[in-house]
Parts: sequence; C-alpha cells; structure tokens
Amino acid sequence: MTPEQAYSDLVRRMKEIAVLGNTAGVLGWDQEVNMPAANAPYRGEQLSLLAGMCHQKFTDPQVGEWLTKAESFKVLMGDPLSDTAVNLREWRHSYDRSRKLPQRLVEEMASVTANAQVAWVEARRDNKFSHFLPWLEKIIPLTQEQAKCYGYLDHSYDALLEDYEPGLTTAKLNELFPPLKKSLSDMVAKITASKHQPDLSILQRPCDVGGQIAFCRKLAQAIGFDFDKGRIDVSAHPFTTGLGPNDTRITTRFEETNFENAFFSTLHESGHGIYDQNLPGNGHYGTPRASAVSLGIHESQSRLWENLVGRSLAFWKFFFPELKKSFPGVFDDVSLEAFYFAINHSAPSFIRTESDEVTYNLHVCLRFDIETALIGGSLKASEIPTAWNAAVKQYFGLVPPTDTVGCLQDVHWSHGSFGYFPTYTLGNLYSAQFFAAANKDLGGLEAGFEKGDFKPLKNWLTEKIHSQGQRYRANDLVKVATGSPLTSQPFLDYLGKKFGALYGF
Amino acid sequence: MTPEQAYSDLVRRMKEIAVLGNTAGVLGWDQEVNMPAANAPYRGEQLSLLAGMCHQKFTDPQVGEWLTKAESFKVLMGDPLSDTAVNLREWRHSYDRSRKLPQRLVEEMASVTANAQVAWVEARRDNKFSHFLPWLEKIIPLTQEQAKCYGYLDHSYDALLEDYEPGLTTAKLNELFPPLKKSLSDMVAKITASKHQPDLSILQRPCDVGGQIAFCRKLAQAIGFDFDKGRIDVSAHPFTTGLGPNDTRITTRFEETNFENAFFSTLHESGHGIYDQNLPGNGHYGTPRASAVSLGIHESQSRLWENLVGRSLAFWKFFFPELKKSFPGVFDDVSLEAFYFAINHSAPSFIRTESDEVTYNLHVCLRFDIETALIGGSLKASEIPTAWNAAVKQYFGLVPPTDTVGCLQDVHWSHGSFGYFPTYTLGNLYSAQFFAAANKDLGGLEAGFEKGDFKPLKNWLTEKIHSQGQRYRANDLVKVATGSPLTSQPFLDYLGKKFGALYGF
Repeated sequence: MTPEQAYSDLVRRMKEIAVLGNTAGVLGWDQEVNMPAANAPYRGEQLSLLAGMCHQKFTDPQVGEWLTKAESFKVLMGDPLSDTAVNLREWRHSYDRSRKLPQRLVEEMASVTANAQVAWVEARRDNKFSHFLPWLEKIIPLTQEQAKCYGYLDHSYDALLEDYEPGLTTAKLNELFPPLKKSLSDMVAKITASKHQPDLSILQRPCDVGGQIAFCRKLAQAIGFDFDKGRIDVSAHPFTTGLGPNDTRITTRFEETNFENAFFSTLHESGHGIYDQNLPGNGHYGTPRASAVSLGIHESQSRLWENLVGRSLAFWKFFFPELKKSFPGVFDDVSLEAFYFAINHSAPSFIRTESDEVTYNLHVCLRFDIETALIGGSLKASEIPTAWNAAVKQYFGLVPPTDTVGCLQDVHWSHGSFGYFPTYTLGNLYSAQFFAAANKDLGGLEAGFEKGDFKPLKNWLTEKIHSQGQRYRANDLVKVATGSPLTSQPFLDYLGKKFGALYGF
Repeated sequence: MTPEQAYSDLVRRMKEIAVLGNTAGVLGWDQEVNMPAANAPYRGEQLSLLAGMCHQKFTDPQVGEWLTKAESFKVLMGDPLSDTAVNLREWRHSYDRSRKLPQRLVEEMASVTANAQVAWVEARRDNKFSHFLPWLEKIIPLTQEQAKCYGYLDHSYDALLEDYEPGLTTAKLNELFPPLKKSLSDMVAKITASKHQPDLSILQRPCDVGGQIAFCRKLAQAIGFDFDKGRIDVSAHPFTTGLGPNDTRITTRFEETNFENAFFSTLHESGHGIYDQNLPGNGHYGTPRASAVSLGIHESQSRLWENLVGRSLAFWKFFFPELKKSFPGVFDDVSLEAFYFAINHSAPSFIRTESDEVTYNLHVCLRFDIETALIGGSLKASEIPTAWNAAVKQYFGLVPPTDTVGCLQDVHWSHGSFGYFPTYTLGNLYSAQFFAAANKDLGGLEAGFEKGDFKPLKNWLTEKIHSQGQRYRANDLVKVATGSPLTSQPFLDYLGKKFGALYGF
C-alpha cells in the first residue's frame, strides 16, 4: 500500500461516513419538521443504528493503518496547509480522540444521558431539581472520567472544550471572561438606570403568519441564503442542518404576536446556513477541508447576521419600509427609531435564549463558572441551585423564582455536554471582530446595508472564513482573517457605541 | 446454535434490514416532497450506499445458515401458517431468489437501467423512440437472462411476475385476460355509441387549492387513514410510503381546475396507506408476517377506496353536500346525478394513468401482450411502436399521434420492470371481488356510505386482509377472504351494472 493509496482509501471511507452521517441528518430534520410523534421510538432505532455504523467505520483499526501510512506522504513536508495535510491533521486528531474512551465508558454515558434527558424534561416541567440531581451525580463523574481518558495539560475542563472548540483552553477563557463580565455588568447597570427606555409594545403587534413567512424568506434571501440549495421550514426549536453539498436547511417558528422571534431566528439560522452553503465544493465534501471549523466560528456567522447586521439601524433603514408594506397598517404610527430601539431593548432576565446582546454573555459566564467548578471538583451537583441563584443575583440583581427558569433551563447537561456553553460567547466575540475587520477592509458596509446590499460582507466572509473549511484551527483563522488574535475589545466597542447611543450613556 | 437461536438471529437481522430500508424510504420521500433539486446526485449516492448495505446484509451466507438451521424448528411441523413458518417461508423464497442472479448481471442491469431512465425521459420529451431503443435492446436480453437464472416451468415471463405477484403465472393471466378484454371492448363500444354522455365541464370548475387540501384530508380521514400515524403532502407524482410502524405517508397533487385528480388520487393513496397502517403491530414489524402480500393486493386496496367506494353514488350522497359547502357557489347549479356521472365518465384515451375504470384494463392487456411477446422472443424491441399502435387502434379505434402518448408513456421498462403491469389489473379484479364479499358478509355497505360510515368495510378489510400480513400468498388470501379463487366476474358485474345504468345499456 502506497501513502497515496492509503490516503485515497481514507478519503473514500470518510466520505462514506459523511454520506451515512447526512442520512442521519435527514432523519433528524424529518423528525423535527414532519414526523408523526407516534413514530419516535422507531426513528430512535434508526438513528442509533446509523450512529453505531458511523462510529464503527470511523474507529476501525484499518483507519489507523491508513492514517499512519498516509502520514508518510511526502507532500506533507511541503505545505502543512495543503488539503491533504489539513485532512490528515484533523482525521488524526479525531481518530486518536475517538479511541481514547473505553467502550464501557461510551456505553455507560449513552445509557445515563438517555435516561437523564427524560428526567430533565420532567424536572424542568415540575420545577424539581431533586428529580434531575441523581442523574447529574452520575453524569459529572463520568464526564470527569472522560476528561481523564482524553488527557489534558492544565485543567480537566480543557479536555472537554476540545470537543466543541478544538484548541481552546480554560486558561484562555479565564483571561477573556472576567474583564468581559466586568464591562457587561457595568453596562447592564447603566442600561437599567437609564431614563431612555424603548416602547416594547411595538414587538407584540399582531403580524399575520403568512406575511411573516414571506418576510423571513425575503430576509434570508437578501443576506445570501441560497434557496436553490436549501429550504426554510417550521419546527419547535429553530435549527440549521446541512444534508448534502447542495442541501442546507434552516427552520424557524412563527407566532402572530412575536414577529421579532421569527425574523431574528431566521437571520440567525441563515447565518449558519450561509456558512454551510459556502464551504468548499463537491470534490471536498465530507472531508475536513470542506467542514466548519468549530461551534464558536459557526456561531459567529449566525450572530453576525442576526445582531451586527440584522439589529443595525442601517439594515432597518432598508427593511422598515418593506416591513410596513408587508403588514399594511400595523406599523403606520411607528418611527424607524422607535422600531430600532424596540428590537435592541436590553434588560436583565432569567432565560439565556431570550436574553439580549448585552446580557447574553453574562448568562454564559455564569455557566462557565459553575461548569469549571463542577468538573474541577470544587462544587457538588447538589449545590448547583444555590450557586446559580447567587450568580444571577450578583449579575442581574434578580432571584430566579423557580429552578425551571434557573438552573434547569438548559438541556446541555442532560446530554453530558460540558464545555459547550463558552462557544456561544466566543461566537459573539468572533462576530464583532470579523465584522470590524470586514468593515476596515471594505469600508462603508452600512451604507450598503441601507440600500439592501449585503454582498460585499457575504463575499468577505466567504473568502476569509467559509471557503477555508478547516484549513486553520479557530484561533489561527481569527488571526489570518482579522490580523490579531481573539479579544473582546471589538465586541465591547460595538456594544458600548450602540447601547450607549440608545440608552444615553 | 439451536433452531430457536438461529430464528431469533434471523429476526434481528431482518429487522435491521427493515430499519435501513425505511431509512432509504425517508430519503426517497424527502427527495420527492422537499429536497432541493440541486442535491439529487448526492441523494443518489446515499440511496445507493443504503441499497448496497441492505443487499449485502440480506444475501450474507450467514443468513442461509440461519435459515437452514431455523427450518429444522419443530413448530414448523405443527402449523404452516404460524408466524414462524410464514416468516421462514418468505425469507427462504427471497433469499434463494436473491442468490440466483450472478453479481455481474445485477451490476450490468443497474448500470444499464440508470442510463436507460435518462434516455427514456429524453425520448419521451422529444418523441424519439429511436433514442430509447438501444437501451431497450440491452434491457430485454438482460431481463431474459434474469428469467433464465431465476428459472421457470412454463413461460419465461413467469419468472418475472414472481417479483411483483408471487405465485402468479402467465397461464393464469392468459386465462383471465382474453375474456376480460372481450367484455371490456364490448362495453367501450356501447359507451362510445351511447346518447347519454356526462357534462365534463363540471370537472374543470375552479376550486381553490387550500379548500382542496382541506377536503382531501377530510376524505382520507373519513375512510380511515390515521393522521396520528401518517401525513399527506404534495409531490409531482402521488405515492404512498411506509416509513415505520407508525409513520405512513401519502402524497397527492393539486391543480385549481382539476379537483377530480386530487380527490381520487387522495382516496387511492389513502387505500394504500390504510393497508400499511393496519398491518400487524410493532412486534412483527420488519418481518413478512407484518408485510403486504403483493403489488396486486396492495393495488386492490387503493382501487377499492378510489373506485368502488369513492366513485359510488352512495359516497357522494354523503359528500356532495359537504363539497358544496367547502366550495361555496361553485357547484350550486350541479345535481348530484350530474356530478356522479361526470366523475364516472368513460371514453377511449391514450394514457393509461388518465384512463377510467372501463378502459384502464385494456391498457394493461395491451402491455401484457407486448411484454410476453418481447420476453418470449416473438417481438423485437424495434417493432414496439407498430405493435403498440395496432393494439390501440384495435381496442380503442384510435391512433396515437406520437410515441410520447403511445409506447413511451410509461417509465417501467426503463427500470427493467417487466411483469409489473398485470398487477394493476389484478388489483382491479381483487378489489371488486373483495368488495362483493364484504357486502355479502356485512350487507348494506352503501347505506352506511350515505351516512358517512365507512368503518364496517374498513374493519372487514383489516380483519380479512391487512392484519393477515403475508400469512397467505395472494391466490390463497383471495380464497380465504372471499370463498373463491380470483375471477373477473365480480369486476365485470360491477362495471356492467354501474356503467350500464349511467350510459343506458
């Protein structure tokens, strides 16, 4: 077997795994969008069979042999950023990682989290943390064991971050988060104390759902989502899924008296979708060269279009007249400025997913503190509600009335997903840094938005980020694309300028 | 390995194949209903990978060993109609058959038909039989070779019928079809000559599509399609697909000026869907005990609800007032009798799928004659257009103006599906025989229809047919359910009575 043969065998195998993975993707999408609920157990069997097949095909020792042989490929010596080198680097990383967990641990985790998810749903519904606690008390030690198997240099939490944002460390987050937390808390105090407050009743004006659907399609299309290679549908929780090189699907949800939700979740999911639609083409499909970098980078694309573009005054200078036309009579007495202020309202709240640009990252910092303490062993699962409520009090001056709107609000821990939350904040920070760099490179982006022209920004993102696939790890990609490593400064500058103007500080 | 173990290993394997098969089903449904067209090549890769996996898992020699061992199971001696015996009988049949074709022939057929389908689409579009001919000239010898590999006693066409209607023979069709052809031709002549003709303009009255969708749901629900375990969607060609024990999906299509098409294709597909939804429950799912008997029996269920129920006067006694309410003003000047006559119009035509109850089977007889001649070797592929046009002239007194509406109208031959067409007529014959038996057993079915009550008929079908799965082969099922073997008499009696009354003969 030559290195070339080994490499081409690897590509074939990995593309086959991608084909199976996308098959599971279709089943998953269908389950959320179409499937009769009564079929759920059978669909579960299908997904589990496919997951097992993908795992088996990926962890096959043959893959290890191909990797070792292909790594002797002489082209690697030349350019570590060549397609071949990039693919081998990422496959090696995933392969080694996949073989570090003993089968027993994988199976135990799968079985515990399957039960934990059911328990979490009930605990949240009934506001009974005690019902979820026994499962957390199993999941946390299993997660700690996972971290030990994966290995880490500094903090065991590093081993978990690796699943979601390869290369990210606890140390880096400990450098980023505390000053961010401080600045955001100051901003929250100023906003809360401000005499200028928006008229939020605008956001509840009834807009018929048919009109919302049409308007959402218009928004998605305007910013660059390609409906010839994608769809938009309705599901209980909005999401984006890539089902093939020419099939990217986003979902949203509609309520007559909450157009804001539909519009901004459409822009958010479109941002994810545009990333997927502009990854390198068919020949690379199914390889790291044509895959997204990380959850944080993915989230940066959704947040950029949702917030930096979609909640800008320039964007609505173009779209507000369109909105008035689409919902005749509804916004006749509303000024552009009042509308813009309403969609940028900020206030302390309990629920992360409903929070605004200023408070969102405080919700994440809170979770990061609790997660690192849990995994590090300085906090017991039973102490979560107390720790949670104390943090909410400290950040927002509020006390959650129930655990349902407190420490039970997120599904992540029931999946055993520790280390996921920080990627949301990274996404926000990346988004501001990318936007600032694009604006510096191109100049006058907002003048374009006012005329409905989003192409220059979309093309910049495609060139700098989408088309790169996994050529760079996230921290390098940021440097290459923006000229400096990740900092929270562009994000804080952006927030300060925008919310300072709105709330008068 | 005990016979019990071998049997349970077989069940596990076959259920796994069903899970994969249904996964392909979801992909196929999605392709017709949702998928962006640009993703077609990738979806093709996915379907081909899954098909290969299913084939490999089924033809695995291990399956043969399990079968042989399980067949020594002593319970078999007791009851040949036990679940175990039925499953083993059908698995043995499929397994032996699947291993009779050499790999080379399977691959050649797959490759030739993939190209032939593309050529057929173009040939039909451009009315160029010569473009399709070279592919037919490859497909026919390959099909003859298949028949030889499968083996047969009497006519090589028997070996092909076995794929669609196990147990059916050319001899049986040669006994059924000629008198049927004669009677139907006589009826066509009387109908054509009749002074009574319906007002067909009724069928083109515009009915808004939203109203049609709602009405179709009402029709499907009324006859027993369970929307808690199924859906109805829109696709270019209506079809039914079972995606799991609690997930049966039907599709239809809507045109404002052709409500007839939507209503009757909904009833047709609902008939297929009701069969699937009432096969034996979850424990048996994925085994022959819980599978449909044959294409002919499946078609009997769709045609029964579409025609014997859905085009009956009793049915519209109930639904015509509902229709008037659903489309205010559209049918105010139309009498029930005029409406009933219009939806039962009969006239010679070129296209099988658009033909009526009287002429439909003549289209099938024509194809049967040509197919048996092609496979038997007495007709050359190049002679098809001449033979086709001569038969259309003979049956209908018409000459097809183009091959597009003649011998190029059906997709089946481009798939290599010789032996499929007769199952359409069998479906019609079975449907009338089942309906007559149900009416004899239950009495007064039509009185129920007039009140919107379809439960007794649906329950009879479920008891006699759906719940039986593959316990009986089709010819035995008919005997058990109706007390006599298949004949065309009930069908001819039904047509004669109905069309005699309408057209006055």
